[in-house]
Amino acid sequence: MGIKANPDYSIFETEITVRPDDIDMNNHVHNSKYLDYLLMARYDQMKKNYKVPMEEFVRQGYSWVASSTYIDFLREIKLGDKIAVRTQVNSYEGAHVKVNFWIIKTDTNKIAAEGYSVYALISTKNGRPVRIPEEIIQKYTI
Amino acid sequence: MGIKANPDYSIFETEITVRPDDIDMNNHVHNSKYLDYLLMARYDQMKKNYKVPMEEFVRQGYSWVASSTYIDFLREIKLGDKIAVRTQVNSYEGAHVKVNFWIIKTDTNKIAAEGYSVYALISTKNGRPVRIPEEIIQKYTI
Amino acid sequence: MGIKANPDYSIFETEITVRPDDIDMNNHVHNSKYLDYLLMARYDQMKKNYKVPMEEFVRQGYSWVASSTYIDFLREIKLGDKIAVRTQVNSYEGAHVKVNFWIIKTDTNKIAAEGYSVYALISTKNGRPVRIPEEIIQKYTI
Amino acid sequence: MGIKANPDYSIFETEITVRPDDIDMNNHVHNSKYLDYLLMARYDQMKKNYKVPMEEFVRQGYSWVASSTYIDFLREIKLGDKIAVRTQVNSYEGAHVKVNFWIIKTDTNKIAAEGYSVYALISTKNGRPVRIPEEIIQKYTI
Repeated sequence: MGIKANPDYSIFETEITVRPDDIDMNNHVHNSKYLDYLLMARYDQMKKNYKVPMEEFVRQGYSWVASSTYIDFLREIKLGDKIAVRTQVNSYEGAHVKVNFWIIKTDTNKIAAEGYSVYALISTKNGRPVRIPEEIIQKYTI
Repeated sequence: MGIKANPDYSIFETEITVRPDDIDMNNHVHNSKYLDYLLMARYDQMKKNYKVPMEEFVRQGYSWVASSTYIDFLREIKLGDKIAVRTQVNSYEGAHVKVNFWIIKTDTNKIAAEGYSVYALISTKNGRPVRIPEEIIQKYTI
Repeated sequence: MGIKANPDYSIFETEITVRPDDIDMNNHVHNSKYLDYLLMARYDQMKKNYKVPMEEFVRQGYSWVASSTYIDFLREIKLGDKIAVRTQVNSYEGAHVKVNFWIIKTDTNKIAAEGYSVYALISTKNGRPVRIPEEIIQKYTI
Repeated sequence: MGIKANPDYSIFETEITVRPDDIDMNNHVHNSKYLDYLLMARYDQMKKNYKVPMEEFVRQGYSWVASSTYIDFLREIKLGDKIAVRTQVNSYEGAHVKVNFWIIKTDTNKIAAEGYSVYALISTKNGRPVRIPEEIIQKYTI
């Protein structure tokens, strides 16, 4: 299908080093590890690009949890492949943010996987979803 | 949304034991582990219910790879929770089979996560998709 | 070398189900997963055999952390192999308990790996080691 | 105790990025992940420093498997910590090489863990140990 970039938001990128323990019996990166690479990229970009690291959310009594994820596996990733994860905010609604992602093989610029993840902002006090504050939306609207 | 069961196919179930290494810094099962539980269930059910274990596919020069996955995370799973993964074939098309799944907390019968995964049958010789043979479809049509 | 059983303490056993995500590119259980199986067994046995589950330690302000581990890898474990982890207290000293372990292929009763792990009891308030209370030693001296 | 460096062999270093999925319920890097970091470092150094990458061994019909490992856990590693793994050949004997390792927190130069791992060279044809060829020893004697 193809995940379309939303021109209103920036796309940020994080390089990932494939580790031997990410490789499964099929001799390529195990499919669940793609979600771990996405999580790594979001942590990195929250700090490096949005300047609001996860620790800052936790200090304010918030946390982000995955609410749903869709992923298309397009090309296998092998040990030694150079890859990067690009993510981009797609939209906000209430407690939720939808984030598009692309896992790229940087040597060829081909897409290994793409999809989106919806995250909910929750209160760490009671685990309940919390409307994303306007101040956060502004910091993430770059 | 809710993943609808297809009355044409059986639903099979596999109990999963949550391991301490599945738990992440949020003190619940890490989100990518849900895909590992699904994979465990499919392996178990291919052997136990469909009577065509993965090893048999490999012997015949085939393998199954995930082509896309959608998952809704509905409830957290904690260490000590009793869970089971139910899966059900939804439909076949060419080289692809769509499988619905539900991860259940068996103490309360509540759904912790649900979704579907599309798998492609590939030839292990060249990695190319192969139309699923009628004989396989029949064995899986239970 | 061989890890010798200490006749003063019981040996307890936990069955482990090998999951597909435990298998690495060498087509057998990845070496670091042996430590995850050991941890699973200790959690299970603390609850089932010693009747003092990890949660009880945490409630009392304690936790156990691995201080050192030695492991001999003797036989590979494959997907589909039936395995169990046996552990046995070897000795107590101050804040430390030394636990011997054997990972067994139950079909053949052959040892896949063996070794020991030294755990320290720590206070969750300050992370410092705490002398193991006599009451705990007695519950574990079975 | 402290793992002593052997002045006859070089110490090589690989930086590791801690990923969120490496963190466990105790909010620090899970203990089995230390072995994954060590494996990552050996792969990296085989290629970068010894100039005989794992793929070259496989092409020649060899592979390396862990035979035994000892590890002392000295300091916890948190998400965001900068770490590196240093390894050094200690000695050769028959099919075995003993490798010392130190996992370092590079901000403070303190040791998070140290130990050694004994690896066996095996033939991929029959899985049997093979005396390490003199040519390999020479390439690794730097």
